[in-house]
Amino acid sequence: MRALFIDNGLRLTDIPAPSPSPGEALVRVTLAGICGTDLELGRGYMGFRGVPGHEFVGVVEDASVPEDQRRLWLGRRVTGEINIACGRCASCARGLGRHCPTRTVLGILGKDGAHAERLTLPLRNLHVIPDALDDLDAVFAETLAAACEILEQVRVQGSTRVVVVGDGRLGQLAARVLRTVTRSVTVLGRHRSKLALLAPLDVRIALSAEDAGGGFDLAVEATGSPAGLDAALGLLRPRGTLVLKSTYHGGRPLPISRIVVDEITLVGSRCGRIEAALPLLASGEINVRDLVSDVFPLDEAARAYERATDGEALKVLLKP
Amino acid sequence: MRALFIDNGLRLTDIPAPSPSPGEALVRVTLAGICGTDLELGRGYMGFRGVPGHEFVGVVEDASVPEDQRRLWLGRRVTGEINIACGRCASCARGLGRHCPTRTVLGILGKDGAHAERLTLPLRNLHVIPDALDDLDAVFAETLAAACEILEQVRVQGSTRVVVVGDGRLGQLAARVLRTVTRSVTVLGRHRSKLALLAPLDVRIALSAEDAGGGFDLAVEATGSPAGLDAALGLLRPRGTLVLKSTYHGGRPLPISRIVVDEITLVGSRCGRIEAALPLLASGEINVRDLVSDVFPLDEAARAYERATDGEALKVLLKP
Repeated sequence: MRALFIDNGLRLTDIPAPSPSPGEALVRVTLAGICGTDLELGRGYMGFRGVPGHEFVGVVEDASVPEDQRRLWLGRRVTGEINIACGRCASCARGLGRHCPTRTVLGILGKDGAHAERLTLPLRNLHVIPDALDDLDAVFAETLAAACEILEQVRVQGSTRVVVVGDGRLGQLAARVLRTVTRSVTVLGRHRSKLALLAPLDVRIALSAEDAGGGFDLAVEATGSPAGLDAALGLLRPRGTLVLKSTYHGGRPLPISRIVVDEITLVGSRCGRIEAALPLLASGEINVRDLVSDVFPLDEAARAYERATDGEALKVLLKP
Repeated sequence: MRALFIDNGLRLTDIPAPSPSPGEALVRVTLAGICGTDLELGRGYMGFRGVPGHEFVGVVEDASVPEDQRRLWLGRRVTGEINIACGRCASCARGLGRHCPTRTVLGILGKDGAHAERLTLPLRNLHVIPDALDDLDAVFAETLAAACEILEQVRVQGSTRVVVVGDGRLGQLAARVLRTVTRSVTVLGRHRSKLALLAPLDVRIALSAEDAGGGFDLAVEATGSPAGLDAALGLLRPRGTLVLKSTYHGGRPLPISRIVVDEITLVGSRCGRIEAALPLLASGEINVRDLVSDVFPLDEAARAYERATDGEALKVLLKP
């Protein structure tokens, strides 16, 4: 099958299609998203070697399960939870398979991903996509779940004053999710065209920290840059909360004294629950179609990755 | 009056006694503690110039209030809330005068402190000390309040697995406060003599991270050292919480990727409410007398500060 492969850089190649292990489904990928983590992996983050991609929509072609179950799944349109957990450890017992210490992660850690014609995932990781939901929307389920994760970790109410720092893919989704709960969402970004997408949602937009104001209860760092982190910290009131949505290479100096003196809470936030995201998409409560910048065929994956690094692009998709 | 003065180093000097502004009391200091912040101020932290000291017991000698109120306060034995708030801003309205942006802070910011024969504080900052509570215990009220602050910020239950990193003044108090709520407290330290004080309290003690184990729900960083912070982070389970109790000069590299991937929560934690601490001391639920290493006369303040930096010392007190 055709697949994008990372190994000291990206290359498009032909590799054998994966075959499903017991309990797994074979999924034919119909659409996949490119996310910041994919770009980082392409640059050598985590020493990744394999097929990247963890945002996908696909169709179940086969499954290594008893025939009666298999029949139920064949032809179903699915997306999936990307963390493949052991199901037996303390984290799994707590319902947090996303933190299972021996997990593999689709397209990120020890498991080939979705930037290929086919992938395998355990059936228990799959979520069937409602018929009414188009692939172009459903492909956002995993990223939207990561934005929904904020609401699982931090208490947000109607009066909570929120600032999202970053107008990119994740910032856009975080702002939209938070806007479903609180009236007061400000997005601080640097791209007028991206910020303009938020204006109809009654989200305040700001091009500078001064414009954004200050004294926010909650800040979400969604730029992936040290400057974004500093800006987000600077916008908080004492006892405010900063949600960190971006991973970085290596360490990052943080002003510990400010955090202690002002009793700031920092919350690391990663993947969320697909089952929280799909209903928001299916009901139309959150629209994402305006975030699709381009759809490239898989054979043009190199161009697609290039396009995804462009500051003006939002979500770039791959169609195998 | 005799006072310790910081101005490019420490010196003992004679300065005019302060006179109380409207609403303030004049307090004759009978006992004062030396804390890590005092030592940092002595080394130039925050460019402090003035009289340090914010842990104290004293007797009200005068007050700039109407005579009927004044009479009520004269001769009362008191300790005090060290943040002097405006009473009118958003933080104050939220009951968080400790975070008032225009606050002064006794012996730390814009207000001469307790390492002197006398100090002034607003009457609303004072707390009367129960008769049964000795000065030697009551002088811990402010530090113990800072330890109690952890319980105000983080939910701790009987089954919460806690590790305190640091066996010094603050670590000792944090462990004792946490032990009133949860059965499972481990203290990781480097001083056998200090750790030995905790054994009778049914607190697990550890001399290395390996001894301490791992998978803790909550870690409290109370060493003030980067190594302590790294150790505390390393002992947490995914989704665990790290309470930062120590301020540092400048920034400090933090492994942001670890924080995001494992969804760690960091909570900056500073001063607490004296009214939470005094009852714990008065009831004997928390004993602190074993933490007193030395009591020096104020005239030997330089020796006392030197002693407080000694790794074997716990709380060093000054008696004006």
